[in-house]
Amino acid sequence: MMNPVINFTPGPSQLYFTVEDHMKVAFREGIPSLSHRSKKFTTIYKEAVDGLRELLGVPANYHLYFTGSASEIWERSIQNLVEKNSFHLVNGSFSKRFFEVAQQLSKNPSKIEVGAGLGFETSPLVPSEVELIAITQNETSTGVCVPLAVINDLRKTNPEALLVIDAVSSLPYPDFNYDIVDSVFFSVQKGFGLPAGLGVWMVNDRCIAKAESLLSKGISIGSYHSIPGLQTHAINYQTPETPNVLGIYLLSKVVADLVRHGIHRIRKETEYKAALLYHNLNKHPYLKPFVDNENLQSKTVIVADTGEHTEKITRALQAKGMYPGDGYGASKKSQLRFANFPTHSKEHFELLVDTLEKV
Amino acid sequence: MMNPVINFTPGPSQLYFTVEDHMKVAFREGIPSLSHRSKKFTTIYKEAVDGLRELLGVPANYHLYFTGSASEIWERSIQNLVEKNSFHLVNGSFSKRFFEVAQQLSKNPSKIEVGAGLGFETSPLVPSEVELIAITQNETSTGVCVPLAVINDLRKTNPEALLVIDAVSSLPYPDFNYDIVDSVFFSVQKGFGLPAGLGVWMVNDRCIAKAESLLSKGISIGSYHSIPGLQTHAINYQTPETPNVLGIYLLSKVVADLVRHGIHRIRKETEYKAALLYHNLNKHPYLKPFVDNENLQSKTVIVADTGEHTEKITRALQAKGMYPGDGYGASKKSQLRFANFPTHSKEHFELLVDTLEKV
Repeated sequence: MMNPVINFTPGPSQLYFTVEDHMKVAFREGIPSLSHRSKKFTTIYKEAVDGLRELLGVPANYHLYFTGSASEIWERSIQNLVEKNSFHLVNGSFSKRFFEVAQQLSKNPSKIEVGAGLGFETSPLVPSEVELIAITQNETSTGVCVPLAVINDLRKTNPEALLVIDAVSSLPYPDFNYDIVDSVFFSVQKGFGLPAGLGVWMVNDRCIAKAESLLSKGISIGSYHSIPGLQTHAINYQTPETPNVLGIYLLSKVVADLVRHGIHRIRKETEYKAALLYHNLNKHPYLKPFVDNENLQSKTVIVADTGEHTEKITRALQAKGMYPGDGYGASKKSQLRFANFPTHSKEHFELLVDTLEKV
Repeated sequence: MMNPVINFTPGPSQLYFTVEDHMKVAFREGIPSLSHRSKKFTTIYKEAVDGLRELLGVPANYHLYFTGSASEIWERSIQNLVEKNSFHLVNGSFSKRFFEVAQQLSKNPSKIEVGAGLGFETSPLVPSEVELIAITQNETSTGVCVPLAVINDLRKTNPEALLVIDAVSSLPYPDFNYDIVDSVFFSVQKGFGLPAGLGVWMVNDRCIAKAESLLSKGISIGSYHSIPGLQTHAINYQTPETPNVLGIYLLSKVVADLVRHGIHRIRKETEYKAALLYHNLNKHPYLKPFVDNENLQSKTVIVADTGEHTEKITRALQAKGMYPGDGYGASKKSQLRFANFPTHSKEHFELLVDTLEKV
């Protein structure tokens, strides 16, 4: 049976509508106790990887690894790809956390930071010695996105640095040019509508070479989840550790569903639903989008300034079975966040704006 | 519906027989998309922790954290608890891997190593400067256990070193004296009969103090999964990252089931089933236990020398729906491994020995 509510929290979010059926099949097929060293597991891993390549247009010079979370990928990225200096575009709690991870790993990160609700409409100047530029393409805390044009410009002005993209709360929506970035990662409990507990890390050959060069200099790049360790296993569709087998299985199935639905259609629908909600917020008597600049408004995590009306609006939505996300951190009581992921249908969004209009 | 086979592989192993029902309830209650920052999640975390404390007799000076795997706990243990020197009891592939993790993290580990099928019947001499003694209490690759008396002796002769126990494939069976060890960890896909993708790390106050002392010396102890970071969240039944919420929920439910079944009964049943299989192997015309020394024979992972008969025995077992684990590594074609976990009933083991007798 489906959960009768519509969960608009930006993660964990509403399950993709096919997940419960896939779970039933998983039990029928013994997936929850399947050995990660079995032939069948390698088939599942391959299906997930091939499906993601097809869905997102990920080229052959990229390699796909599984981790416990996207937080882990922050750490593994810094550990494997930075000898001394990373540079971080910071505009919210999660991009800031990525920066702090580099500090905690005793690297020497630098950053450009803007206030909440602001972002990067043009590409910032990056110090020349930087080895890695960390871009949180969608800041889940504030609903600010980094436009793809800015990523293009960063590549042009920094041909050598590794461009690492945190796309945790935006994929599968953004149509990245994988030829100009070097690593993209996400976790499955957001746009893919899956139970939490799995991160997906995509790295290109330049990342592998960088990790190997650190290793050859005697720098520790971790143990079981170093890039070379992951790569040695990934070429055989294996993992170094016993992974979240069930999570990888469910991912493979939902990715196949998304491929069938069509990435072009998913992107068009995402834009339609986002336009619907931003339009509603723009003309609303006492609500407005938190992010002013239209170029920086996220299509996948839409944040509304709700001020003193937050509780009333929440109650009105919940009365119709819709659960918005609280504002993040200090904005907990003055903002609401709405995820716009593939599992959120046009009808969900129409009901949402209809209810907001009538509050 | 239950999977009709009996999975004797030592991990991932047969699911605990209540897991599928718990999964149905989880979907009904919205657990797969539950926010890890919700009140309900803290209740689930607390239930899992309180249940494990009761089941295993873990005292109040221990703190329980969740990780992606036990492989992660190898790394976090070394990273957080060792400045320079760890010492490893090595008698198989997994204890060796723990040692190698310390090498990969640029520490200076030392070891005492014995051959496959051998173990430590008395406590080895440990260099005096060692900060951490790593004991793989049950070596999944060979079916050799470290007797609890040896752990007691190691404590007596090494009052200062942290005693860290890998109990991945033995818990909940061993009745550890938590007052003399400092950290115990396991993953859920073995003795607890759960889907893989979750490690449980138990550390005492001495471990917290050690991690904090490394941090105060400017040594990196990692980022989101450092002991101080985990502890700050754990006191509020929270996790630093978005964790495997569904896995933690299922753990809380299976632990409650095991508490109801009774730990005394679980231990007695484990010993009965182990005695049954070892007895069968000892008197079998062409099979024998791989581990000669009775004191070192694991009760929870029983390895049989099957030599040239491996395939024939496997076929005979599979014909009755029983799936043994292959031998590990080089012994893949000459040994079989049998998990003896709480989900494996006396009836399963009676059918197993009955079938082995008639081969």
